[in-house]
Amino acid sequence: MFGLDAVLQNALKEDVGWGDITTESCVKPDRVVKGRFIAKGETVFCGVDVLLSVFALLDERIHITVKCWDGAVLEPGAIIALIDGPARAILVGERTALNLMQRLSGIAYQTRKAVMEIRGYSAKICDTRKTTPGLRTLEKYAVRVGGGVNHRMGLSDGVLIKDNHIRAAGGIQAAVKATRDHVPHTLKVEVETETLEDVRQALEAEADIIMFDNMGLDVMKQAVDLVAGRAKTEASGNMGEKCLHEVAKTGVDYISIGALTHSVRAADISLRFDNESI
Amino acid sequence: MFGLDAVLQNALKEDVGWGDITTESCVKPDRVVKGRFIAKGETVFCGVDVLLSVFALLDERIHITVKCWDGAVLEPGAIIALIDGPARAILVGERTALNLMQRLSGIAYQTRKAVMEIRGYSAKICDTRKTTPGLRTLEKYAVRVGGGVNHRMGLSDGVLIKDNHIRAAGGIQAAVKATRDHVPHTLKVEVETETLEDVRQALEAEADIIMFDNMGLDVMKQAVDLVAGRAKTEASGNMGEKCLHEVAKTGVDYISIGALTHSVRAADISLRFDNESI
Amino acid sequence: MFGLDAVLQNALKEDVGWGDITTESCVKPDRVVKGRFIAKGETVFCGVDVLLSVFALLDERIHITVKCWDGAVLEPGAIIALIDGPARAILVGERTALNLMQRLSGIAYQTRKAVMEIRGYSAKICDTRKTTPGLRTLEKYAVRVGGGVNHRMGLSDGVLIKDNHIRAAGGIQAAVKATRDHVPHTLKVEVETETLEDVRQALEAEADIIMFDNMGLDVMKQAVDLVAGRAKTEASGNMGEKCLHEVAKTGVDYISIGALTHSVRAADISLRFDNESI
Amino acid sequence: MFGLDAVLQNALKEDVGWGDITTESCVKPDRVVKGRFIAKGETVFCGVDVLLSVFALLDERIHITVKCWDGAVLEPGAIIALIDGPARAILVGERTALNLMQRLSGIAYQTRKAVMEIRGYSAKICDTRKTTPGLRTLEKYAVRVGGGVNHRMGLSDGVLIKDNHIRAAGGIQAAVKATRDHVPHTLKVEVETETLEDVRQALEAEADIIMFDNMGLDVMKQAVDLVAGRAKTEASGNMGEKCLHEVAKTGVDYISIGALTHSVRAADISLRFDNESI
Amino acid sequence: MFGLDAVLQNALKEDVGWGDITTESCVKPDRVVKGRFIAKGETVFCGVDVLLSVFALLDERIHITVKCWDGAVLEPGAIIALIDGPARAILVGERTALNLMQRLSGIAYQTRKAVMEIRGYSAKICDTRKTTPGLRTLEKYAVRVGGGVNHRMGLSDGVLIKDNHIRAAGGIQAAVKATRDHVPHTLKVEVETETLEDVRQALEAEADIIMFDNMGLDVMKQAVDLVAGRAKTEASGNMGEKCLHEVAKTGVDYISIGALTHSVRAADISLRFDNESI
Amino acid sequence: MFGLDAVLQNALKEDVGWGDITTESCVKPDRVVKGRFIAKGETVFCGVDVLLSVFALLDERIHITVKCWDGAVLEPGAIIALIDGPARAILVGERTALNLMQRLSGIAYQTRKAVMEIRGYSAKICDTRKTTPGLRTLEKYAVRVGGGVNHRMGLSDGVLIKDNHIRAAGGIQAAVKATRDHVPHTLKVEVETETLEDVRQALEAEADIIMFDNMGLDVMKQAVDLVAGRAKTEASGNMGEKCLHEVAKTGVDYISIGALTHSVRAADISLRFDNESI
Repeated sequence: MFGLDAVLQNALKEDVGWGDITTESCVKPDRVVKGRFIAKGETVFCGVDVLLSVFALLDERIHITVKCWDGAVLEPGAIIALIDGPARAILVGERTALNLMQRLSGIAYQTRKAVMEIRGYSAKICDTRKTTPGLRTLEKYAVRVGGGVNHRMGLSDGVLIKDNHIRAAGGIQAAVKATRDHVPHTLKVEVETETLEDVRQALEAEADIIMFDNMGLDVMKQAVDLVAGRAKTEASGNMGEKCLHEVAKTGVDYISIGALTHSVRAADISLRFDNESI
Repeated sequence: MFGLDAVLQNALKEDVGWGDITTESCVKPDRVVKGRFIAKGETVFCGVDVLLSVFALLDERIHITVKCWDGAVLEPGAIIALIDGPARAILVGERTALNLMQRLSGIAYQTRKAVMEIRGYSAKICDTRKTTPGLRTLEKYAVRVGGGVNHRMGLSDGVLIKDNHIRAAGGIQAAVKATRDHVPHTLKVEVETETLEDVRQALEAEADIIMFDNMGLDVMKQAVDLVAGRAKTEASGNMGEKCLHEVAKTGVDYISIGALTHSVRAADISLRFDNESI
Repeated sequence: MFGLDAVLQNALKEDVGWGDITTESCVKPDRVVKGRFIAKGETVFCGVDVLLSVFALLDERIHITVKCWDGAVLEPGAIIALIDGPARAILVGERTALNLMQRLSGIAYQTRKAVMEIRGYSAKICDTRKTTPGLRTLEKYAVRVGGGVNHRMGLSDGVLIKDNHIRAAGGIQAAVKATRDHVPHTLKVEVETETLEDVRQALEAEADIIMFDNMGLDVMKQAVDLVAGRAKTEASGNMGEKCLHEVAKTGVDYISIGALTHSVRAADISLRFDNESI
Repeated sequence: MFGLDAVLQNALKEDVGWGDITTESCVKPDRVVKGRFIAKGETVFCGVDVLLSVFALLDERIHITVKCWDGAVLEPGAIIALIDGPARAILVGERTALNLMQRLSGIAYQTRKAVMEIRGYSAKICDTRKTTPGLRTLEKYAVRVGGGVNHRMGLSDGVLIKDNHIRAAGGIQAAVKATRDHVPHTLKVEVETETLEDVRQALEAEADIIMFDNMGLDVMKQAVDLVAGRAKTEASGNMGEKCLHEVAKTGVDYISIGALTHSVRAADISLRFDNESI
Repeated sequence: MFGLDAVLQNALKEDVGWGDITTESCVKPDRVVKGRFIAKGETVFCGVDVLLSVFALLDERIHITVKCWDGAVLEPGAIIALIDGPARAILVGERTALNLMQRLSGIAYQTRKAVMEIRGYSAKICDTRKTTPGLRTLEKYAVRVGGGVNHRMGLSDGVLIKDNHIRAAGGIQAAVKATRDHVPHTLKVEVETETLEDVRQALEAEADIIMFDNMGLDVMKQAVDLVAGRAKTEASGNMGEKCLHEVAKTGVDYISIGALTHSVRAADISLRFDNESI
Repeated sequence: MFGLDAVLQNALKEDVGWGDITTESCVKPDRVVKGRFIAKGETVFCGVDVLLSVFALLDERIHITVKCWDGAVLEPGAIIALIDGPARAILVGERTALNLMQRLSGIAYQTRKAVMEIRGYSAKICDTRKTTPGLRTLEKYAVRVGGGVNHRMGLSDGVLIKDNHIRAAGGIQAAVKATRDHVPHTLKVEVETETLEDVRQALEAEADIIMFDNMGLDVMKQAVDLVAGRAKTEASGNMGEKCLHEVAKTGVDYISIGALTHSVRAADISLRFDNESI
């Protein structure tokens, strides 16, 4: 995964500092150890690349046998991977690997719950830019692993015209036109709307995607009907606290949920060493 | 705060890429705007430095008037800060600033709730190394802002002898001795214990801090009595799901909680622009 | 401009090494100098930000008065900017500033010539990913300054399905579908076609943009008619050597030209010091 | 080559962003492919290290068989190298590798043409500091590959006293002396001259190299005679537009040409996949 | 060793620049060479990791057979390691490897001399923060190799309350309390004292470590008696010029010496090539 | 000074980690302090830029009045500079500033002593590549401040043909020729010699500089006579332990001494706070 190593090296530097002094004191350099990564609660696993890369960065003699791949729905007790190799390096990398895997699996699990809630509807669960600074690519990957889809990755690879942009440009039509003239033609133009009148203007401006921001369910339903397939539609605004299948029932194409990535409950994953091995 | 600018520059680069193309299209370079950062739910604010630094990195003409300082307990609707300056730069930095302030305030709020729960007892709420990769210094700061205290920052500035270290070293006594011989004498030595027998050995080894890992409340009470002030004591192990005042009642000095930083609910903070200003 | 300072610092480090030893030997630290940046040949100027930033990085006492802004069409002899300040810092930055301004102005000028050649047609001149490693954002900016538009910035912010992708996916329809399922819905899907049959399939697959790769003018004309506005169309393939208005006459929406950035003739710009000033 | 990997990683990051989303969508991870790098026009190949390193950075399973080495004079259709390995990684690296190889080969070809033009004379073709920011080491290497020689790499590893330095120091003699006293004795001292009188002074000052800046051919001839081997001589000033063998005929030792690196026509090199392989 | 590669890459970049031009000129790429690293004077060797890592960074075909490990006390003429591999890469790395090994061995040797001087006493030789910028971790490691122990690594992983802190906090008691409330409980608190009265106050404040700064030997003896094991004691202040066994005789636990790292005499180590090998 | 800030930021990061926890605990943010940097022993001061830059990086409210400039010969007790500003930032930067200034002044002092020793002779004292990794530019600057001159900065900006190069190239003549053909003509070519026969060959090869490596004084005298001004001459090899004026008497142009930078005794400089100020 592109950029993963830089994230991991930064995380290791942050945790390890000038060395794991407890381990250096207690564990001889030549000691080897065996262990297994285990899911202690239900989750959707996400983090194979993290797992492999953290330990590859630390010691090439560490060997990992992956038992579950990204996207696997895990029961409590499920074995994620076996690990063996030099005890020192494994202890050094343990926390960094777990911190990231727990977070990503937490996101995948949360996303999957949202996806399950709207099963049967055509809507898709979608993320936002409300991600943890420095981890966006990883977190958006976890959303995909959980069955969701990605919105734009950042400010330069997608257009989202919000109320401030509209006011500054002098109306929806003007804003859409200004954007089309400036940005690569390879990008779609999305506009945020709050009322049916906004939606009408967005349609006239031939926006490619129309976001319904904090609309009530009734109005949203009318908005979907008004659009009638002429643009993609997206429901947004505290969706983390909404009854998602009610939203999906309106017929929107996408439901974007910031809480997927900004309010995560870490999955409970741990590394258990084989008793006889150390 | 040391290292903050590097975190923020990384976060901005991640979000902004080669530019905020929507804003560049819709908002003229010379347009200025006014707004206010508002807490939409109850929280403990944490993030003054983040707020000031994000926008200082983007445009020195942005002016911020801070209304709440780190540690302020906020009611819904509380104004955190006023901002005015070039609209483009403010829109570019908005999401990065909010993402971090929301996370840090969420941690401070969660910590404060734990601190409140054990009010009247001598125990202190304490964090762990289960932090978000890349954000440890900031997240540990947020714990302090919420009224908690910090455990070691990483593997090189504190000693925590766990079961694997004990096994590898050949017992608690041997492990403590090995550590004392190796690490700077400016650091205390902490040992993880699971039974009263472990505690006895840790005392004999003159450990400075004894951690009670996943002990039942009864045993923990006996352990505290056994230690009798000869070492600092720390309760640990899924404390996020425990009744904290029951734990505090045992007389332990510290209760360390990983969930303070690994499972955070972002505070609801937003930037509202003055209608007439854009 | 985002990321500009990093490019300039790298360039300065590359050129200056541990110091401008000639200047340090010959020029006293307190000597000040005046000069002017002059276009010695016809060009379209591009590089105000470069000019200001190079010298701002070197010495804040340097003062620059900009006389021409990005996009200005310059006659030989035109004054671009006046500069005065410490002679040492100005001599240190001179080459780095000129190297970049000459390149960017060269691109803008070349782009403008292409744009002029198709004046009166609806087609737009568009760049590619054939840019100088490390300078893509700057070079694509220069294309916009010259009146062109940008294609995707890189592999992650746009979709371009080429023949290899089509073969690997098992046909145009399969490739378009696979892409739609995987990428953010904020991006359009572009497909490369070589024959009218390819174009037909791309239309059926509802591609957003159809590229005509190395098509003859006759076939291209038929392809445009076949598409009939149902997708955007783009002519590509050695366009740097084609008669551009013939291509534009086919009715395509975009003509993408790699040579705009891969084969640049640097503009002739120099810094002339006022005789009496040094 | 020293520093090459940093240039390539930067280039890859710039192009790849968070991933090649088209390829990820269409090409399965286990698909392998075969192809060949081909020169489509006449050129002097330069870029073996680039080719090997780009793909080594991406996937160690990629295998490259080099058919032409740096300096090879290629006819249209010449095969440069064979490549096989995972299709995804090859597609990701293709553009970055080509962009650099095309530029470097373009420089080598242009240099060789200049070298050929002065065949039979003792003069050598030499580069300048007018290189692309960030690519100087590579571009100067390409000049050597094309048969040219290098001038100083930057401001700290060579001395070139120009008119401004002379004025600031108070004459050629003073400037040469000041420089000799300040810089490492391992460096030669070069002085720019415009008239025969300047040349006389430079000789008296015992300059190691005397540059003739924008001199007419007649004066240059007299200057060479005047120097009579007591210093190396270098012709400079818009040499890219001069009749080089006329310049060489004056007997100068070096002819330095900025256009070798600032105005490059990219060589036409492409990667063709074997039809049956993907 | 954590962070070593970054130090070495920086050192290599500093020395090698764009290439070892002498070696490239004189030594063919395929030439191999054999040699040995030899201690030319008495020393304590320190630098196995440096030696292995420098050459591993340069060329994986270089093979090193280590003959002496860190801590070995060497007589003049002792062979440290054998090396063979590509001559170019070995010549490129020679100076960087030697510069660091010579410095680290010099520190280890100097430390060992101090340790030997107080043999028989319980005191330990200890380093300070007076290290070479950028090399602290390595230099502190060399102190351990020489038989010394480390003081805190930096300002964030240890507490040392000096006179300015005491004055600012309003007395020793206040300073110790303020520190205990703020820093992780995993760190000890050390206070600097100058008089017996200071020592008394430090004991009342229950400081963990008491530093005697520039005390005369008599007073120091009384201070040790006063402390009577209730805290660790540390002698400090120009210890590099003191008669160390006199200091040790007072009974202090630690003697910290800045000169161990700030005034180092490089060990005389060189790389000798086998005559027939090149 | 070019690159200084990067060195200082690295040094500060190394020392400060996540914060100066002692100072944060004891010193209020708004406290200001005054102090003076004092030379406690005789030295040649070197480090004005270091002093100004360290504190400029930490807090722009710190004000420094420089009393001594680089090169000043200081008596014990001399005041180097006055400082006032926020106490926290001054305490944070104190050690980093002192560590570097002490080292650089130590080098300048040592160099000056060598320069004084050969007063009256034409020889110049010169440094080598035996510098501290990461600090070469600064240390070579300190040599100049002490009255010495610089040898090449690294492997790419100077040519030094040693015995291994000579053997590999097949003799002195071949080595000099190979180098002249490969390196920029702006560099001189230096050859190491051990015998008069070597010197003769070096003269025939028209080397620009001839190094006498570990020659006895008698032979060296003959070598100087043999060269007779046809090349620059340089004495080398454990010069730190030689009687320098005896070497100078031979008439060599340069005496290069590794110990100037590899075995430094730090100058004794300290920061004394005004008693009433904190």
